[in-house]
Amino acid sequence: MGPSDGDKVEGSSSGAGEDLRECEIEGKMEGSVDQISHLALDIGGSLVKLVYFKGNNNCSDDDKKGERIGFSNGSGTYPILDGRLHFAKFETSKINECIDFIYSRQLHRGGCWHHEAPVSENTIIKATGGGAYKFADLFKEKLGVGLDKEDEMDCLVAGANFLLKAVHHEAFTYMDGQKEFVQIDHNDLYPYLLVNIGSGVSMIKVDGDGKFERVSGTSVGGGTFWGLGRLLTKCKSFDELLELSHRGNNRVIDMLVGEIYGGMEYAKIGLSSTTIASSFGKAISENKELEDYRPEDVARSLLRLISNNIGQISYLTALRFGLKRIFFGGFFIRGHAYTMDTISVAVHFWSKGEAKAMFLRHEGFLGALGAFMSYEKHGLDDLMLRLERFPISETYSGGKIHSPLPGDFNDHESIECRVYAT
Amino acid sequence: MGPSDGDKVEGSSSGAGEDLRECEIEGKMEGSVDQISHLALDIGGSLVKLVYFKGNNNCSDDDKKGERIGFSNGSGTYPILDGRLHFAKFETSKINECIDFIYSRQLHRGGCWHHEAPVSENTIIKATGGGAYKFADLFKEKLGVGLDKEDEMDCLVAGANFLLKAVHHEAFTYMDGQKEFVQIDHNDLYPYLLVNIGSGVSMIKVDGDGKFERVSGTSVGGGTFWGLGRLLTKCKSFDELLELSHRGNNRVIDMLVGEIYGGMEYAKIGLSSTTIASSFGKAISENKELEDYRPEDVARSLLRLISNNIGQISYLTALRFGLKRIFFGGFFIRGHAYTMDTISVAVHFWSKGEAKAMFLRHEGFLGALGAFMSYEKHGLDDLMLRLERFPISETYSGGKIHSPLPGDFNDHESIECRVYAT
Repeated sequence: MGPSDGDKVEGSSSGAGEDLRECEIEGKMEGSVDQISHLALDIGGSLVKLVYFKGNNNCSDDDKKGERIGFSNGSGTYPILDGRLHFAKFETSKINECIDFIYSRQLHRGGCWHHEAPVSENTIIKATGGGAYKFADLFKEKLGVGLDKEDEMDCLVAGANFLLKAVHHEAFTYMDGQKEFVQIDHNDLYPYLLVNIGSGVSMIKVDGDGKFERVSGTSVGGGTFWGLGRLLTKCKSFDELLELSHRGNNRVIDMLVGEIYGGMEYAKIGLSSTTIASSFGKAISENKELEDYRPEDVARSLLRLISNNIGQISYLTALRFGLKRIFFGGFFIRGHAYTMDTISVAVHFWSKGEAKAMFLRHEGFLGALGAFMSYEKHGLDDLMLRLERFPISETYSGGKIHSPLPGDFNDHESIECRVYAT
Repeated sequence: MGPSDGDKVEGSSSGAGEDLRECEIEGKMEGSVDQISHLALDIGGSLVKLVYFKGNNNCSDDDKKGERIGFSNGSGTYPILDGRLHFAKFETSKINECIDFIYSRQLHRGGCWHHEAPVSENTIIKATGGGAYKFADLFKEKLGVGLDKEDEMDCLVAGANFLLKAVHHEAFTYMDGQKEFVQIDHNDLYPYLLVNIGSGVSMIKVDGDGKFERVSGTSVGGGTFWGLGRLLTKCKSFDELLELSHRGNNRVIDMLVGEIYGGMEYAKIGLSSTTIASSFGKAISENKELEDYRPEDVARSLLRLISNNIGQISYLTALRFGLKRIFFGGFFIRGHAYTMDTISVAVHFWSKGEAKAMFLRHEGFLGALGAFMSYEKHGLDDLMLRLERFPISETYSGGKIHSPLPGDFNDHESIECRVYAT
């Protein structure tokens, strides 16, 4: 049974919506295709992230039988589905919109409308994040499918490893408005610290495929930015708040070292006059109320507080475990230049230039990608390993970019990935 | 020339006011007493802290000549002044009230009114904190005295070392509503981490008297609590905000692990269902605006965010340098039970029970005490070393207290310290 009493409902993504990023994958499908959803979910505290596979000629008999493309690996001929991976996100508070979206596109049964055929009782959707537990009953009731729960950290790590190994120009540094792609040496990737900034922040020491430990975290994350930001600015969306912060000046509200020291720096301990001594420290002034501050400036101070803090704790955690590489992921970053810049500056400041923050182009979908990867256990063959072994092409031409980035550059980027089945 | 055209003005402390804490010291004064103020200042971004010495029979000729009590150290007889150390604080934004207070009590010239005698051109007041630079001209203009600037970190460390060595029952742990005094072994005090929470936070690795390094810090400190708190709750004072937080429930606004996981804990990584996953994470809800939340709950979430964060960064910093002891000072704490409890829990949580947060009873006056100590260079003899060598008596009877503490217990406590001159 679908939502809205079984009527077909077009997915309403109202603000959250389907992401423009998509990833073309020629994937090999074997086994009982009908019982496997081509969809995986990461249901976090604030956002639901979807990754779904859509065949180029979906719903044709050819596709269903897997006869259009075939390959032989010596032990038989297997079908290959030609298609793309799509990414989408919804607010967790609007989980029903997400369910409507899945239903309208029949993503829970491979994107095919066969009204006459009931959803198999065994149909499952791979899901991770706390919502995989919280909303399991809702998915069963509305879509008739089970959520097969995958561990959140497992998925984040699988997703990050997949991206770092498989996608050329996935990782980059960002500082002073300059983006620089990082060449990942597959033989020298581990260990690294993965910092996933969702509603809260998880810090995971990654030592290999499936080898990792969550070593730290902080509750001051994306949910704090958006939650406090809403209370302070009355913004209607996370993106609006980010956009606002882009135009603000944090010095209106933050107390700088120079303001305590009468314009001087505190040279002895290496604090310049423009270092923030106290975030929101100027707001103690009795002469001004919340209404007297520009929302732009408030948003900027808040973004800077949170980015700085995450950068600092990440660096201290990396140092603790002797990790040289720190990759930042999660939807808080959202390709936002100022956020990345602040995190980079924090890591640079605290490490005295010895460590560099790195970012991932598909930062928001690590968990969902990892959940998608986990289908391999159920029939979708080992995408990751195959991707590892073969070159990846993408529409982006690569190289260094030295121009400032627009706020959400990721949303306008499309990547083609190609899997050669062996 | 004093403020208000030379009229005597009674110090108006309006809200900030003179602290009730006072410390009785029999101090030896030698040298040119008239040119030494019995006053030291720590002028921070938010608060001015004063420490001043008041003789029991101040302004008497006996006192001035130093004949009432005398002692001989073999090279001559020196005067001893019998008196007390007093503590007071003002908001930095009301620096003129502080100056009026000093003027009205003539603290800049030893508490004596001698209208006929002008303030000596050489009179100086020991001062630390950024405001010692920022307000130097103002003090010269209003009181005719120079501010002799002492390094902020030097003073914090000197003040902390003095208290830890000289004052019995100065340091204590606080957890689950239980206060427990810590016996300080003078031979095993160093190294330790001093975390001073003022407007911002400084973290100082202390290796001995005058041996230290500022190794970390964060801009998320007392100024953030008070600044953000004012914007969010419209509280009129820091104390009101603290009091408010005492009655609040952070779970109304913070997103807990259990709320993401549908009431479950995330056992695999050791996160209980009541762990805060995202500070202010529930405020992302579209159904509620700032006005719909109780200020008590907002204040509590904010206090918890900041205390937690400071506890975590402190622990990571202590770990980095192999420091087992972490002492927390600064006016943010203000003997507030919930603040101390949260910092303690954070240190306990992140260290997996291996580290303990310790607090100082005179936490707010470390810098001012350190500045006061620095007079020894100018004639007030080495108070600290003398205090070290002799037993200290105090009105508080000592031992363990297992009852919950009122918010500002420090303010109702009085300590007698006694210095025996040799």
